[in-house]
Amino acid sequence: MRTQVGIIGAGPAGLLLSHMLHLFGIDSVIIESRTREAIEATIRAGVLEQSTVDLMTEIGAGERMEREGFVHHGFELRFAGRSHRINLHDLANGRVITVYAQHEVLKDLIALRLRTGAEIHFEARATGLVDITSDRPKIRFITKNGEARELDCDFIAGCDGGYGISRGSVPESHVRKDYFRVYPFGWFGILAKAPPSADELIYAHHDRGFALISTRSPDVQRMYFQCDPSESVDNWSDDRIWNELQARTVGNGFQLKQGPIFQKGIIPLRSFVCEPMQHGRLFLAGDAAHSVPPTGAKGLNLAAADVHVLARALSSHYATGSTDPLGDYSRTALRRVWRAQHFSWWMTSMLHRFHDGSEFDLRRQLAELDLVTTSRAAATTIAESYVGMPLT
Amino acid sequence: MRTQVGIIGAGPAGLLLSHMLHLFGIDSVIIESRTREAIEATIRAGVLEQSTVDLMTEIGAGERMEREGFVHHGFELRFAGRSHRINLHDLANGRVITVYAQHEVLKDLIALRLRTGAEIHFEARATGLVDITSDRPKIRFITKNGEARELDCDFIAGCDGGYGISRGSVPESHVRKDYFRVYPFGWFGILAKAPPSADELIYAHHDRGFALISTRSPDVQRMYFQCDPSESVDNWSDDRIWNELQARTVGNGFQLKQGPIFQKGIIPLRSFVCEPMQHGRLFLAGDAAHSVPPTGAKGLNLAAADVHVLARALSSHYATGSTDPLGDYSRTALRRVWRAQHFSWWMTSMLHRFHDGSEFDLRRQLAELDLVTTSRAAATTIAESYVGMPLT
Repeated sequence: MRTQVGIIGAGPAGLLLSHMLHLFGIDSVIIESRTREAIEATIRAGVLEQSTVDLMTEIGAGERMEREGFVHHGFELRFAGRSHRINLHDLANGRVITVYAQHEVLKDLIALRLRTGAEIHFEARATGLVDITSDRPKIRFITKNGEARELDCDFIAGCDGGYGISRGSVPESHVRKDYFRVYPFGWFGILAKAPPSADELIYAHHDRGFALISTRSPDVQRMYFQCDPSESVDNWSDDRIWNELQARTVGNGFQLKQGPIFQKGIIPLRSFVCEPMQHGRLFLAGDAAHSVPPTGAKGLNLAAADVHVLARALSSHYATGSTDPLGDYSRTALRRVWRAQHFSWWMTSMLHRFHDGSEFDLRRQLAELDLVTTSRAAATTIAESYVGMPLT
Repeated sequence: MRTQVGIIGAGPAGLLLSHMLHLFGIDSVIIESRTREAIEATIRAGVLEQSTVDLMTEIGAGERMEREGFVHHGFELRFAGRSHRINLHDLANGRVITVYAQHEVLKDLIALRLRTGAEIHFEARATGLVDITSDRPKIRFITKNGEARELDCDFIAGCDGGYGISRGSVPESHVRKDYFRVYPFGWFGILAKAPPSADELIYAHHDRGFALISTRSPDVQRMYFQCDPSESVDNWSDDRIWNELQARTVGNGFQLKQGPIFQKGIIPLRSFVCEPMQHGRLFLAGDAAHSVPPTGAKGLNLAAADVHVLARALSSHYATGSTDPLGDYSRTALRRVWRAQHFSWWMTSMLHRFHDGSEFDLRRQLAELDLVTTSRAAATTIAESYVGMPLT
């Protein structure tokens, strides 16, 4: 088997890359360990930056998103019992966000890729990357029927997330350096059948901890509250969950609307970056190279931004023969990655209670929230980061 | 003895308050434990916000400051071997800072107060505040000649700093709450006879820790570098100090100019706020109520802002008989205090190395510095906070 770009992983990064390459006239093959159904059923993030929306539209994957996604012109920061609106549209020069769940993006991209003739091997397990520092790297994998195969490539894109094999193929000594931070809390997330409690997302700071009131559709709401990362879902009855969410959002007449909870789960909060994001002819993109706490809503958007840089660098290489744009991939992508890491850390630090945090820290957080909701400059800094930098 | 407002402490808060009250036609007496010479020789901060400069000028204390102070239209953030200018004048709508040392401010205020007939008891030790919740509070003190005296007042202003007796007179249980944070580092400060190395202050982030290159006059420079708070001055020869400062500022052709060091000292970094800033007829102002790490250059400016609120509230009380403005003093002052605490913490966190900080934190700091030096909104947030909010 042979292709120009071998892609490991049919998540947002792999699918977007494959389709952008297709539009540039470059062949790719995707090796994906899960079933299509499993991918399309995984509940993840739901906030798309303006640039991600624009990219989806530009590559012809935006039709359903434009119809079913919810455009939000702002969000609310809630503290001391009151909500304060961050007017994204006004502060970020017309740029806004779209709430459209990641698995919906994946459904659209998979359908589009299959319709445009892509070769995607589902349930195929990549077992090794070979000769990645040569000009003929290979992906070894086992097909869903148990056959061992080898895919000869010009380049390999590692889009297989935080637990895939790609990152490990960048040698840990001398070449690769991992940066990480684990937060001392997680998010308890629920999906509930209920009407929305507000028109826009609410990020709530409270003595009891952070809460996020988000939406999926007019009938389904997504909510989170900060919890101990070792907490067990079994300890939380629906009543206890609602009491906690109500306590963290109460005040000034706000009504949190309840309904049957049909999904519960706890996610840890961590920050991770692997440098460099390339080695020889292997390029990492998306979660394979980095992860962010969900507070900044940057995960999927960073994957799209990585791919935007990588696809154009590959296109330039095939068009001109020059390897310069490819050589710059990691440096270019990492600048945005670190900016997003900072923003995600900032939102997380400003809004969560830290177990080792003092009363001083709590007052300081409230002073910071006072700043970002009354200073136009500070609000603009948040808004510009939240809607995302233009793609480079 | 009797006066309208008894003031404990002839630091910036006490002297400014006394003079503002004088201009409002209100009598005051100042009780100060040190000699005039000791006060005028204490080296402290040197950055005056626009509002502090305006206030000094407005009350007739600005003549020498205007002649000898240095107006700075910006400052530099230095990291990864390069300086990036924060253009205060441009970003903060014409507002700037003035570099004029605190002991020069004190010399001017003491001279002005004595010239305008103030009663200042130097070397007089306040021993107790009596009946502060009655309408006739008293200050007991021992004069420099050892006589025990009692000063009957309408109101008492506690301007006697972090170690004075005033704060302790706000009862710790039920009424008073102290908020504090101690940073795991100090600043090693020097005064050197040398020409300035730059036209403006340089705040430097470096792997080895923070450094600040500041100026006092064309001949005298003030510099600091982050150190262990338990470090001893004796371990630091002039050569070692210069090597450390050079190492933290090297790069891109920058030349740090050296000269004979004639003063060395280590200051701890801490944040402190006492709430409320008033109890009965006692009002705390300046360091008696709060202290900030010097990174934000806010200490003296906060004292001036407190006094601006307090003097006008007292004036309003004597003019109208209403106690409402006095009742709001703590709430009004504390909003600015906490905003300044946040800013000081922000500048400190962004620029210092933390002993327990990971490589991730270092990269995140660099991403934040990238943000504040390339995003106009983020730079404006820093600039507006640095030159200070207008007085309320």
